[in-house]
Amino acid sequence: MSPDTAIYVLELVGLFAFATSGALMAIRSDFDVVGIVVLAETTALGGGVLRDVIIGAHPPAAFRDPLYLVIPLVAAAVTFFFHPQVARLGIAVLIFDAGGLGLYTVTGTVKALDAGLGMLQAVILGVTTAVGGGVLRDVLARQTPELFQTKSELYAVPSAIGAIIVAVAYQSGWLLPAAAAGAAVFVSSFRLLALWRGWRAPGAWAVRR
Amino acid sequence: MSPDTAIYVLELVGLFAFATSGALMAIRSDFDVVGIVVLAETTALGGGVLRDVIIGAHPPAAFRDPLYLVIPLVAAAVTFFFHPQVARLGIAVLIFDAGGLGLYTVTGTVKALDAGLGMLQAVILGVTTAVGGGVLRDVLARQTPELFQTKSELYAVPSAIGAIIVAVAYQSGWLLPAAAAGAAVFVSSFRLLALWRGWRAPGAWAVRR
Amino acid sequence: MSPDTAIYVLELVGLFAFATSGALMAIRSDFDVVGIVVLAETTALGGGVLRDVIIGAHPPAAFRDPLYLVIPLVAAAVTFFFHPQVARLGIAVLIFDAGGLGLYTVTGTVKALDAGLGMLQAVILGVTTAVGGGVLRDVLARQTPELFQTKSELYAVPSAIGAIIVAVAYQSGWLLPAAAAGAAVFVSSFRLLALWRGWRAPGAWAVRR
Repeated sequence: MSPDTAIYVLELVGLFAFATSGALMAIRSDFDVVGIVVLAETTALGGGVLRDVIIGAHPPAAFRDPLYLVIPLVAAAVTFFFHPQVARLGIAVLIFDAGGLGLYTVTGTVKALDAGLGMLQAVILGVTTAVGGGVLRDVLARQTPELFQTKSELYAVPSAIGAIIVAVAYQSGWLLPAAAAGAAVFVSSFRLLALWRGWRAPGAWAVRR
Repeated sequence: MSPDTAIYVLELVGLFAFATSGALMAIRSDFDVVGIVVLAETTALGGGVLRDVIIGAHPPAAFRDPLYLVIPLVAAAVTFFFHPQVARLGIAVLIFDAGGLGLYTVTGTVKALDAGLGMLQAVILGVTTAVGGGVLRDVLARQTPELFQTKSELYAVPSAIGAIIVAVAYQSGWLLPAAAAGAAVFVSSFRLLALWRGWRAPGAWAVRR
Repeated sequence: MSPDTAIYVLELVGLFAFATSGALMAIRSDFDVVGIVVLAETTALGGGVLRDVIIGAHPPAAFRDPLYLVIPLVAAAVTFFFHPQVARLGIAVLIFDAGGLGLYTVTGTVKALDAGLGMLQAVILGVTTAVGGGVLRDVLARQTPELFQTKSELYAVPSAIGAIIVAVAYQSGWLLPAAAAGAAVFVSSFRLLALWRGWRAPGAWAVRR
């Protein structure tokens, strides 16, 4: 398997995990099959579409390769029929989701840098790529965005640190494939560590005074 | 009346119906005149703007013809002053809304295909054109999107079937105006039948096990 | 200080005020530091990004100058550590927010006209520039958009009147810098007057019959 094929397969696995979290949220919200499909697609592809609409990549990557749309459909169908089993696979979904977080942070940041954006802008769009779909999922399901909750484990923070590493490496001219892969693994591991150890981001400090 | 004029008139009638549902939602939510205008415009034009932003049609069709912005304003004004009467016209609004659903499904799918997108992508954007405004309306009014509810009659499903018909006909090279009109009529009739007979989309199956 | 520098400084002050209202909303919603940063950035920049995505200015102005992203970060950090003090500065924040409302109404309307859009379209995008971030803030924090509430003082109405003045002046060929500045001051003063005198927009009239 060439590196490009490997990245492509990993992208699809990440999409599947993101889409599954959208479909499960739709089912928990008692949505019908339309809601399940829309939340699966939006969670999986929303962040990348936001990035591409902002950098002006038309049509967005999500609309260039039919597999990007088909994989969330498959995830929606599997979850539709087997959601009790899928929900019980919780840890596996979280691991693949962490993999998606790392991969989409890196590819999103690189795409923004390739489009000529500055480092800070690329970091923000890299994080948007990785976490934007989940925020749209929560808005559509009328939930408080999990990303913003003090009781949820670190998700955007590992992504932001990974995006900064990628942006610095890219600007320094030494973003080799190995460095990009390292950043993705770092983000995913950091996220899983945060889940395991219960690391959370603080609310505003003065609240507790 | 030429076919182009007929389509244009039907588009404006559809916009009026979509805008009315937005204005009524705003009034039910006790919003002020600003909320009534914003929900009328967003419900009427939101789906098409999403499509155009994704395919890269700048500015979106909604911003090219002032009438597309004026008609929702008129609908907002009429609903502002006569909403008890408008609410009592419920069935008429639903019929025009079904008309808009059919028309916007077909025009949205064709525009996406004309922009060079694939069939699956065009189907998704055709449905987005027709149903996207209603989802934005519900998000702004803090309602659970009606589109996703098991208790609401089929809306996205007729639209998706119509969009598939259009995409297949287009790719086969026999999308004549008559075929496009037929698909629009099919979507609208299917939607009205679903309303009449209470057809709904199922929630996830295993829920009932 | 040249006029251009003055506008730039005023823009940054307006961004700071918008971002502060986003950060305070995040803290009131018990969001963590991620939510505080996202709401600060979204409130400050969301309206302009919507405008630029619609007129097809890629990347949006918010992503061209790093200071546009840094100022909301600074506002988020200041609010994170000193939010009780910031909340007590309520009137100062409202005054700077009114300044931002006036300035962004004018610059947004002019950008839309410069992009070749018609007068009505430019008015809508001018108002969107000024008020869009606040609506996104409320959607992300799961609040009823303040913009739509009958109990909140006029905000979009002064902006719309100012945008109409700018569009008419621009089309008449006499939009001198002085006229633009006058329109911005008019919007800000009208907003502050509305706050002071409790002017509100009405809900639908027939409701009270």
